[in-house]
Amino acid sequence: MTIVKTTNALDLLKGAILQTIHIEPVNRRSFASFGDIIQASPEAKSFPINQGNTRRFHDLATAIALGENARSIISIFRGRPFSLPLTLKMMERHPFGSQAFIPLRPVRFLSIVAPDVDGSPGTPQAFLFGPGQGLNYFVNVWHGVLTPLDEETDFLVVDRDGASGSDADENLQTFDFETPYEVQM
Amino acid sequence: MTIVKTTNALDLLKGAILQTIHIEPVNRRSFASFGDIIQASPEAKSFPINQGNTRRFHDLATAIALGENARSIISIFRGRPFSLPLTLKMMERHPFGSQAFIPLRPVRFLSIVAPDVDGSPGTPQAFLFGPGQGLNYFVNVWHGVLTPLDEETDFLVVDRDGASGSDADENLQTFDFETPYEVQM
Repeated sequence: MTIVKTTNALDLLKGAILQTIHIEPVNRRSFASFGDIIQASPEAKSFPINQGNTRRFHDLATAIALGENARSIISIFRGRPFSLPLTLKMMERHPFGSQAFIPLRPVRFLSIVAPDVDGSPGTPQAFLFGPGQGLNYFVNVWHGVLTPLDEETDFLVVDRDGASGSDADENLQTFDFETPYEVQM
Repeated sequence: MTIVKTTNALDLLKGAILQTIHIEPVNRRSFASFGDIIQASPEAKSFPINQGNTRRFHDLATAIALGENARSIISIFRGRPFSLPLTLKMMERHPFGSQAFIPLRPVRFLSIVAPDVDGSPGTPQAFLFGPGQGLNYFVNVWHGVLTPLDEETDFLVVDRDGASGSDADENLQTFDFETPYEVQM
């Protein structure tokens, strides 16, 4: 038996031409369908507490952990910085929980997100977050991996842990793009 | 009718002599009954994710929100710095939720906590937290207000919101000391 491997010219072409995504500064409206921006901004609801020594910027995001005995847990992610342009090959989402990322020093990072189109990520968008900003991805939103830009950075992360940590796989869906994207300023 | 006001000499004396609490550096063992230390320390469980670009320091704390329809929410507290020595007049606790505080830049802050003794705080302890450290108070642990030491500091806070935000009062118990404490290094 002879196995004949055929090459699809279109596939080769698609592999060669990366589509470019240009980074845009984030704002509440453009990010609204993907998650919350966590920021002590003048627009956020805030009020004084502790005899006026503290101002509470209240309820900037909700931590969601779906499923019986699931927990919202607090972790730290230490992320290596990325250089631009970067190649986006993969996105992921978490069907059972939100996921918040807040840098523990004032740095820039990227959030790459995409709408869902029939169970796969549609065209991604890349948002630039600046010092003093974090985010909370809503449940099941397609997003790229942690992407600090300036230096190795610790992020506080609030996300979901399953009943025994055993269903972590179920809470992670990944999608590999046939043709990667190039992300640049 | 003549009202005679009597003065209790012991009360005067108690008011005049503040008990001193000396600040101690925090460690996992001494803080164990009060909460979790949130820190990317070598002792924490960690593992690489994202093709090795990120290290996850996993499950450093659990966010607890007790009560039907209660939520774990993410807020930012902007706290004015305190000078030492400081006077500790009051402590508080939250019977229905944990409360995490993580500074959003590498600074020092104090955590003043106390064991519960028959529904009131016992003798307080003051712990010094350093750069790279945050904490999560367990449910119903007596603690002082947010106490940064270096500068005005934003803290990420993960705590509980009630069903409609209407039972916030039920989740806050405060205790005023008859004789304040003096907290110093």
